[in-house]
Amino acid sequence: MVTYKQSGVDIDESNLAKKKLKEHVKSTFTSNVLTGIGSFGALYSFDKDKFKNPVLVSSSDGVGTKIKLALMSGKFDTIGQDLVNHCVNDIAVMGAKPLFFLDYIALGKMDSDAVEQIVKGLSVACKENGCSLIGGETAEMPGLYKIGDFDLAGFIVGAVEKDNIIDGHDVKMGDSIIGLHSTGLQTNGYSLANKIFFEMSDYKLDDRPDELQGKSLGEALMAVHSSFLKPISQIMDKGIAIKGMAHITGGGLVENIPRILPKGLNAKIDLNSWEIPAIFKLIKRLGNVPDDDMFRTLNMGIGLVMIVAREDEAKVVAELHDLGVQNSVIGKIVKGKQQVVIK
Amino acid sequence: MVTYKQSGVDIDESNLAKKKLKEHVKSTFTSNVLTGIGSFGALYSFDKDKFKNPVLVSSSDGVGTKIKLALMSGKFDTIGQDLVNHCVNDIAVMGAKPLFFLDYIALGKMDSDAVEQIVKGLSVACKENGCSLIGGETAEMPGLYKIGDFDLAGFIVGAVEKDNIIDGHDVKMGDSIIGLHSTGLQTNGYSLANKIFFEMSDYKLDDRPDELQGKSLGEALMAVHSSFLKPISQIMDKGIAIKGMAHITGGGLVENIPRILPKGLNAKIDLNSWEIPAIFKLIKRLGNVPDDDMFRTLNMGIGLVMIVAREDEAKVVAELHDLGVQNSVIGKIVKGKQQVVIK
Repeated sequence: MVTYKQSGVDIDESNLAKKKLKEHVKSTFTSNVLTGIGSFGALYSFDKDKFKNPVLVSSSDGVGTKIKLALMSGKFDTIGQDLVNHCVNDIAVMGAKPLFFLDYIALGKMDSDAVEQIVKGLSVACKENGCSLIGGETAEMPGLYKIGDFDLAGFIVGAVEKDNIIDGHDVKMGDSIIGLHSTGLQTNGYSLANKIFFEMSDYKLDDRPDELQGKSLGEALMAVHSSFLKPISQIMDKGIAIKGMAHITGGGLVENIPRILPKGLNAKIDLNSWEIPAIFKLIKRLGNVPDDDMFRTLNMGIGLVMIVAREDEAKVVAELHDLGVQNSVIGKIVKGKQQVVIK
Repeated sequence: MVTYKQSGVDIDESNLAKKKLKEHVKSTFTSNVLTGIGSFGALYSFDKDKFKNPVLVSSSDGVGTKIKLALMSGKFDTIGQDLVNHCVNDIAVMGAKPLFFLDYIALGKMDSDAVEQIVKGLSVACKENGCSLIGGETAEMPGLYKIGDFDLAGFIVGAVEKDNIIDGHDVKMGDSIIGLHSTGLQTNGYSLANKIFFEMSDYKLDDRPDELQGKSLGEALMAVHSSFLKPISQIMDKGIAIKGMAHITGGGLVENIPRILPKGLNAKIDLNSWEIPAIFKLIKRLGNVPDDDMFRTLNMGIGLVMIVAREDEAKVVAELHDLGVQNSVIGKIVKGKQQVVIK
């Protein structure tokens, strides 16, 4: 006799997980959320009167192999924050504000404690970004994932007034490029980092290599992906025009900035304009990683790039300073072929 | 020297995949889609004038361990259709029509052919459901997934006029319960089925057990999850009130119908009112699976349940007949404690 539980799917543990995450999820609800967990689809009332021509801006993402660090450390909440902040930035760079978020969690074996930690992290970050966590799927998939392993994906929807979409179309020669500093690798390049630290070498998460000046390797690698929604919103609310923004994820500065460069223009980046954080230098040294791979894989300390008119540069820098957001003017727009030149 | 490629992430193959899927994805775009692939967030223009009080209805889902059948057969397109149709049904049962869809594909090793097949399947189903495939993330995650393995999640957003939300609040004693037939397991219970056919027994996908009357096991198990959007829309457009609908997924009839039952009412289901398809009987026989597990795990031949007033029953059945949608009147609403009683 075979029961469903014997086939590797534990509905009781799954129901326990649902119970545990309920309060976390509810804490994120705004008055726009019409139902809670339990209905087939999640309902979100859309304030159409706030817009003349509303555009929904959406993105789906995962956290890549940063998930392995969560597995190594047994710490599952920050990976939830990483995911939400990653998604928030992807729509914020287009001028949108987040409305709601849904998650997908797949596990080799249902573990209600781990799921609660993940959802707690998602909830914390959703609240910080004014975003309701209105739905999700938690799937137990024995055999596809090893017991203890899991994966995590997220989906975000935000909105922007059509005329306020930021897409780089107005970027001009001479514009300034401002880099908002990242907390570390954010959520990209972990396959490379993990290989270097944990396969080629035998580092532990609580090792404290000299280069990290007192920080543990775990602290450096698991630093939470920062959300840049607040500085973006504040600058926009002050009426300062941000012409283009790039979220620096996989592909680094080299592949992400061109997504907002008009034809005929290059982004000229001055390599000496910001201090590359120690964790990147350590990765380069230990792995003897070519510079080209470093810059195409990792953000190198810059989490988000803003392009503004030269005359707005000081105002933007002042706003960022007010908010305590570390930043550097890292370059300018010059003639070229939609490329990034770093020197 | 370690390059990113050596760490198991192949950006070239990834870019090839992006190129291959472009045309499939574009074929799904309606005029509401403002950008293509490449921007950080996907832009969808929302027709606010079509609604007095628009409500966005969203859902995220996966295809569970049905993915193992895709891996066994090397056929990756139908799994994409399964996912879209699953998501479409989850919002259609609340009265919503789909607007757009995003996917998340994670692989142990990037394989542009497999990704193209998955996205082709997603695109086919998106087109069939009038839904634009506007975004997605394809992540290569060496080490978390075995080479050749992958996972797939989807996220859908639709819209409904607030007054037209279907949630079961008007369900009354004496209402009729109509079951729309499923094509098979849809996307639930595959951990159980896989264990019985491929772990406990040594079946192959092209075996043709007598019970399946000429069909191969692969055909029966990989039958595409049906979308019920068309019949739902047609019945609603004719002005016939559907009081409540349940998409019969994990948890079966037993756990899904209660989600739309008001307090004080039960759903009384007549077990003899429809023919349980052969694939379910085969699973039961081979695994000696208890009836309770069968009905809590599998849809048993009913893919979607509609609750309508007794006097609308014949009209609904006639509409379904017109569309060629196989169905059975499977029960009625009686006094009770928000439970499903199957006899």
